[in-house]
Amino acid sequence: MSAADIQGLALAIVQAEIGKREGGIPIGSVLIGGGSEAIVYGSGHNLRMQNSSAILHAEMSALENAGRLSSGVYKQATMYTTLSMCTGAILLYGIPRVVIGENINFKGEEDLLRSRGVEVVVMDDEQCKALMQKFIRDHPNEWDEDIGGRGRGGEVKQS
Amino acid sequence: MSAADIQGLALAIVQAEIGKREGGIPIGSVLIGGGSEAIVYGSGHNLRMQNSSAILHAEMSALENAGRLSSGVYKQATMYTTLSMCTGAILLYGIPRVVIGENINFKGEEDLLRSRGVEVVVMDDEQCKALMQKFIRDHPNEWDEDIGGRGRGGEVKQS
Ligand SMILES: [Ca+2]
Ligand SMILES: [Ca+2]
Ligand SMILES: [Zn+2]
Ligand SMILES: [Zn+2]
Repeated sequence: MSAADIQGLALAIVQAEIGKREGGIPIGSVLIGGGSEAIVYGSGHNLRMQNSSAILHAEMSALENAGRLSSGVYKQATMYTTLSMCTGAILLYGIPRVVIGENINFKGEEDLLRSRGVEVVVMDDEQCKALMQKFIRDHPNEWDEDIGGRGRGGEVKQS
Repeated sequence: MSAADIQGLALAIVQAEIGKREGGIPIGSVLIGGGSEAIVYGSGHNLRMQNSSAILHAEMSALENAGRLSSGVYKQATMYTTLSMCTGAILLYGIPRVVIGENINFKGEEDLLRSRGVEVVVMDDEQCKALMQKFIRDHPNEWDEDIGGRGRGGEVKQS
């Protein structure tokens, strides 16, 4: 965890707050380039409720807003996300580093990511936790839908 | 492989052909409900080139076009896809069955899916193979971009 990571996560939290103001699921993500100058390629937030979208998780929004990038760009980038849900996109593009705000409210595929050589940093950030806790309390159904039915202690294994 | 699977894959191929006519990457997918009557929840094709999209793989397009579904619906559905690229979405929603047209032109995360209990059927379909072979020959750069740089025999491990 570095000053750059704290800054990157702060940008992701800004996105989560935008989502919250829109009445959406408050999760935000930012894709930032590696190297000496931090280039913000794209940022976004979960759009399930705003756009009736089944796929626009925060990480996906950030990737989509970044547009088409050459494949080498992803290989040097870090994905900052307030909560981690979207492993597939990270593996597909070969993003080597993921910084996650917290993993108390949802534990994503961190073990899988690590087993594929992705560096995973969990910040355990209080602001991220508070944002999600309030949302889950106020909107349990929407949350359950967003995580594919894992919200109710059902039989579905986490994946 | 059943008559229903051949029909489901045929719908996915129709989507791939639409993508081809649009000048896009010719991969199509259809999400079909289980049970006695096959409900087509959504269908779609890869939109990288048409929409400059980094995330609208065929499976994602099909999921997005299906709109917001209750989480139980996914648990009984089958994803038909001419070529498999988008493991993350399948795992997240807990889709229990995937029918893949071919896996010669790209081998997706079939082992991972199987290790999570997903039934994976590979049809080894000649039409699917021919569609992709021609596209990859004619557009090697776009194909490389769509699969995160795996197209050139580079150092990137498949994920
Ligand atoms: Ca998200
Ligand atoms: Ca695709
Ligand atoms: Zn996702
Ligand atoms: Zn994908």
